[in-house]
Amino acid sequence: MSARRPPIVGRYTAEELALAARNRGMPLEALRYDVTPPGLHYLLVHFDIPAEGPDWQLKVGGLVSEPFSMGVEQLKALPARTLRVTMECAGNGRGQLSPRYPSVPWLEEGVSTAEWTGVPLRALLERARLRDEARDVVFRGADRGFERGIEHEFARSLAPGEAMRDDILVAYAMNGASLPPQHGAPLRLVVPRWYGMASVKWLHAIEAIGQPFDGLQQASSYHFRQAPGQKGEPCTLMRVNSLMVPPGIPDFYSRKRIVVAGTVAIGGRAWSGAAPIVRVEFGAGGAWRDAVVEPLHAPYAWQRWSVSWDASPGEHELSCRATDAAGNRQPLEPPWDLSGFGNNGVQRIAVTVTA
Amino acid sequence: MSARRPPIVGRYTAEELALAARNRGMPLEALRYDVTPPGLHYLLVHFDIPAEGPDWQLKVGGLVSEPFSMGVEQLKALPARTLRVTMECAGNGRGQLSPRYPSVPWLEEGVSTAEWTGVPLRALLERARLRDEARDVVFRGADRGFERGIEHEFARSLAPGEAMRDDILVAYAMNGASLPPQHGAPLRLVVPRWYGMASVKWLHAIEAIGQPFDGLQQASSYHFRQAPGQKGEPCTLMRVNSLMVPPGIPDFYSRKRIVVAGTVAIGGRAWSGAAPIVRVEFGAGGAWRDAVVEPLHAPYAWQRWSVSWDASPGEHELSCRATDAAGNRQPLEPPWDLSGFGNNGVQRIAVTVTA
Repeated sequence: MSARRPPIVGRYTAEELALAARNRGMPLEALRYDVTPPGLHYLLVHFDIPAEGPDWQLKVGGLVSEPFSMGVEQLKALPARTLRVTMECAGNGRGQLSPRYPSVPWLEEGVSTAEWTGVPLRALLERARLRDEARDVVFRGADRGFERGIEHEFARSLAPGEAMRDDILVAYAMNGASLPPQHGAPLRLVVPRWYGMASVKWLHAIEAIGQPFDGLQQASSYHFRQAPGQKGEPCTLMRVNSLMVPPGIPDFYSRKRIVVAGTVAIGGRAWSGAAPIVRVEFGAGGAWRDAVVEPLHAPYAWQRWSVSWDASPGEHELSCRATDAAGNRQPLEPPWDLSGFGNNGVQRIAVTVTA
Repeated sequence: MSARRPPIVGRYTAEELALAARNRGMPLEALRYDVTPPGLHYLLVHFDIPAEGPDWQLKVGGLVSEPFSMGVEQLKALPARTLRVTMECAGNGRGQLSPRYPSVPWLEEGVSTAEWTGVPLRALLERARLRDEARDVVFRGADRGFERGIEHEFARSLAPGEAMRDDILVAYAMNGASLPPQHGAPLRLVVPRWYGMASVKWLHAIEAIGQPFDGLQQASSYHFRQAPGQKGEPCTLMRVNSLMVPPGIPDFYSRKRIVVAGTVAIGGRAWSGAAPIVRVEFGAGGAWRDAVVEPLHAPYAWQRWSVSWDASPGEHELSCRATDAAGNRQPLEPPWDLSGFGNNGVQRIAVTVTA
């Protein structure tokens, strides 16, 4: 347990493998579902899944005029909202970088969509009457462990202006059922448009403080950095990104795809935290053309895209590349980041087409 | 896509990592649950999760006197049975061997328990009237792909005597809800006591044949072999095995455990396909003593065990070792197998105890 871990290249360590075995990706064929079925949603658990006690309380305190504490049943009695939200891990794609930071080695499967039901955070902060001198609002989860030698529970913060958005939920249900243990039972935060680290699981305390929160997961982790020693920029909105369902059938070990020649229906999803997706390009053999992009049906969820491909026998590389309404476009190569955050380089799928 | 893949040592390949990201383990803290919550059950998908069509039919044919085909709703109208079943992947523990076979690199998390509801297979075979000349009963799943150059759908068989056991289910529900896509929706086989490969998912056909089934997953894969070229022995019953919930709290990257000195409650689960568990030994620092083992509450499910440990400051290695009523006892070292099947060597957990 030292300071920052040195970067690595080549094959994956036993530690990376153990993290991959615990922290599940969404198999890419599940891109077919508008809402990811329970149990296929990607999962990142920083420490251990806590055991949920029957007397779970959410405390709202610190720089507020009316601090309170509330059980889960009381919370469920308040007016609720359900939002369909696409969530992506900030480290998605880390495992494809070289060199890479030793952490959860996501390839591209750290993204999913769920329907979350809960109480708007804003309603709770209004009830507590956030005081003017509050500079940050801290969200504490119950999972505890060490990272880089520091013992802490996973905690993150939002600036008061951000916390008062009307689309942030303190959620108690996922896809119409109570939260499962691994997704934060009994309560979690859901922050649409942002990378997943903001959506604190096993939420037990909300605390307003008078200075920027200095917790490890807020002040040090989850920053974009080009080189060691930089303070960096915090990860916030999900970058524009897209994925396709790998066509054809796989080889078991290599997961390479085998497709029969002819017209092949290609499809996938695209998303961006900044703005709706306005364009997806499909690439095959160096040539790009526009796919059909469905309009945004749910404001915080991915959009479906599709295209048909005339597959001729031989080896091919397929790609997709999204652009959002704010003008952000996926880079062709993975953008460099010291910790492997925000890799939205285009997906590349090797396909063998047989006659 | 060649013949058998050569063994590897050391760090893990990109292919192994991609298989680990798709095929999820059960985080070991979930050993606390008698029945694994939905979404935490381990998962092995050989190829892709098939898209379930509304017109799914189960065909029962081949060497039977009354072949039939049945939709899912018809099947649900038949008398059903619910069984609590512990299932383990035959390759669990493969990733700990050296050298190891390049495949899904399970460490120790490829085991879980669920409650499956379905129609006894025996009732379907009696309805179809299995003929005397049937030598094998083949179960075909809908997931299709290539392995070692051979295109096939995942299929396994059981000898008629085994298939007529009264505890094998054609299941349509898991933990009281419809099967999720990744666990075989709409129908799967569940073969208690056997390693998971026998429990064919996305089941669409049952076919009685006049000779032993020669499909790749039956006749070649899933055999214990000491050396290349051997025919080997087929994997069948789960070997005696046990795991503990790692105590204390983890370090994020190494997953090493940190425990505060004092009396620590230790617990876990033990199981065997052959017979109930009669003894679990707990090892700390080279000394072994007996844990308390709960009696078998459900005949096909794991048993809970517990012990208290007086943790003194320093570095410790904790282990557990189960023995079943048939006299099978876990080996202290991983048993060698060319394909990494049946590794039931004792779990070893490194723990740092702080004052």
